[in-house]
Amino acid sequence: MTGTWLDAIKWNAEGLVPAIAQEAATGIILMQAWMNREALAATAATGEAVYWSRSRARLWHKGESSGHVQKVREIRTDCDRDVVLLSVEQVGDIACHTGRHACFYRRLQDEEWRDVEPVLKAPQEIYT
Amino acid sequence: MTGTWLDAIKWNAEGLVPAIAQEAATGIILMQAWMNREALAATAATGEAVYWSRSRARLWHKGESSGHVQKVREIRTDCDRDVVLLSVEQVGDIACHTGRHACFYRRLQDEEWRDVEPVLKAPQEIYT
Repeated sequence: MTGTWLDAIKWNAEGLVPAIAQEAATGIILMQAWMNREALAATAATGEAVYWSRSRARLWHKGESSGHVQKVREIRTDCDRDVVLLSVEQVGDIACHTGRHACFYRRLQDEEWRDVEPVLKAPQEIYT
Repeated sequence: MTGTWLDAIKWNAEGLVPAIAQEAATGIILMQAWMNREALAATAATGEAVYWSRSRARLWHKGESSGHVQKVREIRTDCDRDVVLLSVEQVGDIACHTGRHACFYRRLQDEEWRDVEPVLKAPQEIYT
């Protein structure tokens, strides 16, 4: 918690930054959550994704109850240092609390959000 | 601006949501910015990414001055409907204001953020 690398992050007024989890092997964006300083420090220290749960107002070790932890291969930040990007291996292949592989399964089509099933595992199939 | 699909998004207290731009062909995460209701409506209507610039407090048609617009192939939201994901084609191959292809060029290594150059264009080379 004393690292200057943590000070380099531009935490927002609530002490948080958005954290994107991207699957290392496929490039699929699994989810986006939030981190505070403690969460990012714990993620770096343990090699597993730890977020800040805004709804529960506590640290959230992703997969702590389901076993679906995220093994962190790499941590990045962006040019403005106000977003964190994790490259992860998703244990159990389920990142979403709905039981899906990834959270971004709602696609805008004809002015409606439509569920797209299944979420395939190759980005060129998902995102084009 | 009257669409119920816009009402389905859970805007934060400032009326914003994080918006992730992912390159359609490669899966690379180019950037993360913010959208308000007007920005998302304009993005859907025009097929080019429009964000809300928090620093300038105005709509920001990405590439409006540089020509590096983002052609939007698909718009998604997540399970909680509080994040937007764009699948885009990055005109000019430059998404970052630093002139780089993508904004996430700072990697944590030995408790320091180190610039990783170049940002390659295949996700398996970047993220593993």
